[in-house]
Amino acid sequence: MSSRLRGVFAPVLTPFNQRLEPDIDRFIAHCRWLIDQQVGLAIFGTNSEAASLSVDERIAMTEAILQAGIPAARLMPGTGGCAITDAITLTRHAVDNGAGGALMLPPFYFKGVSDEGLFAYYAEVIERVGSDRLKIYLYHIPQLTQVPITLNLIEMLRKRYPDSVVGAKDSSGNWENTKAMLDNFASDGFDVFPASESLLSRALPLGAAGCISATVNMNPAGIRAVFEGWNGDSGAALQARADVIRTIFQAVPMIPAMKRVVAEFSHHPSWRVVRPPLCPLSDDAAPALLKTLADAGFDMPAYPKA
Amino acid sequence: MSSRLRGVFAPVLTPFNQRLEPDIDRFIAHCRWLIDQQVGLAIFGTNSEAASLSVDERIAMTEAILQAGIPAARLMPGTGGCAITDAITLTRHAVDNGAGGALMLPPFYFKGVSDEGLFAYYAEVIERVGSDRLKIYLYHIPQLTQVPITLNLIEMLRKRYPDSVVGAKDSSGNWENTKAMLDNFASDGFDVFPASESLLSRALPLGAAGCISATVNMNPAGIRAVFEGWNGDSGAALQARADVIRTIFQAVPMIPAMKRVVAEFSHHPSWRVVRPPLCPLSDDAAPALLKTLADAGFDMPAYPKA
Repeated sequence: MSSRLRGVFAPVLTPFNQRLEPDIDRFIAHCRWLIDQQVGLAIFGTNSEAASLSVDERIAMTEAILQAGIPAARLMPGTGGCAITDAITLTRHAVDNGAGGALMLPPFYFKGVSDEGLFAYYAEVIERVGSDRLKIYLYHIPQLTQVPITLNLIEMLRKRYPDSVVGAKDSSGNWENTKAMLDNFASDGFDVFPASESLLSRALPLGAAGCISATVNMNPAGIRAVFEGWNGDSGAALQARADVIRTIFQAVPMIPAMKRVVAEFSHHPSWRVVRPPLCPLSDDAAPALLKTLADAGFDMPAYPKA
Repeated sequence: MSSRLRGVFAPVLTPFNQRLEPDIDRFIAHCRWLIDQQVGLAIFGTNSEAASLSVDERIAMTEAILQAGIPAARLMPGTGGCAITDAITLTRHAVDNGAGGALMLPPFYFKGVSDEGLFAYYAEVIERVGSDRLKIYLYHIPQLTQVPITLNLIEMLRKRYPDSVVGAKDSSGNWENTKAMLDNFASDGFDVFPASESLLSRALPLGAAGCISATVNMNPAGIRAVFEGWNGDSGAALQARADVIRTIFQAVPMIPAMKRVVAEFSHHPSWRVVRPPLCPLSDDAAPALLKTLADAGFDMPAYPKA
């Protein structure tokens, strides 16, 4: 975890087989395709159904992609969790294997916890992992955790651990919050990643480091084009084009819908499988989604046979 | 899991040492004391900080108390979790070791999930554990999970798995919901446990099976007296007496406060330790709490030296 992560990251979708087990071959293939599109891999994010995976499953999946040659430096695995012991295990594994960073949820079972309690959680992980290669990105997604990463908490952590707590993903969908994170901390070298490519043109001029967005699984090249070209002549057009795709997926149950589309372009029907409590996209909804995408000019990506 | 669980259960507080590791000796001593008070052990509930424990820690703690002679039949371990793989591991371990039942949270990371998705989660666990000794108690605690166990979900599960889904804990604090669970399902042999002893006198006449209450860790004998004597001459007095203690703990951060009081009556100061994101009771608050309890006539329980 030496050079800083920047750019466009996919919270990598997790393929399951019909027995609901992680499908390692499909996972490797999807990671390879994304790397070839020159985006980074935020494996084990919300859209990866990481909450539905055990610690052992996450470790086995990580080792499988590393053995397959996926570059560790391009990984930002999700390593947070409700139990500090799990967070320590996962974060240490990420650091030991050279991951570029670790995206850490706060513990999300208890509600109404204090910033002091959350500081103690992150401090415990940082102290126990005990590595100067550790780069933590705080994961703010209050609509699911109900436990916000406040500006005050960021300030507390930055003051005590400036070299370890180096950024945040803001999934709140609240631009004012993203802007406040950027205004308060970006100039000090704190790397803020909004959770939607639709914010790139607004966030990058304020110092954002890129974005970590679900729909990078669908449209990696288009989103990367926005990141590279937002301030060029065709910046507005690139942003508008990416926004069209994003908007379509935001209108449907996003994880099942994206998996349904990967099933289509990968020609592997088992990509439709989600773990409970999520439900697959209904047979009724799938044709409508595919038609909406086609009507919007979405080209099914060329995807390697595997 | 043959005979049905009834009566008063403690979500057993989890002692940690100064390194934040589960303190096995203290855990055994606390379980023994509770069993001697003739209450059951809902280990790994909310008030056990179970969300802050890894799967491996929960299994090691369970094996330690079983080896120490705690009767498995009196256990109702919490075995639910966000990942079905974890829920299956924990539930299978509970069944294989003869636990009287398993108290199962729904997966609580994703929000707005459907009853069909939750049904699939519980069904997957039931099918994979695959034992006619499995007795699941559904854990409804929407203020923490934001994922309710609806009456509709109970009906779906009872219809398909009447021998496996045998009861619920209602921690909503909403009497109308507890009453609806009782009215709809108790006569059919579904065992409802409210989460507060303060509801015993109202819930038992409607067919409740007992209660699973945090403050059983503080006042096991008093709460058991309500369960045994609610409909006797001194029933109202017993209920009022238990309510006084309950009310005091409801007015403070309950887990840290209860641990502070166990530290007092066990003479083991390390009982004060909580895992992040919780914070210990402040040094300012502790004397006030102890004085309030003393003023209310709370006798520190006699606790075995260990």
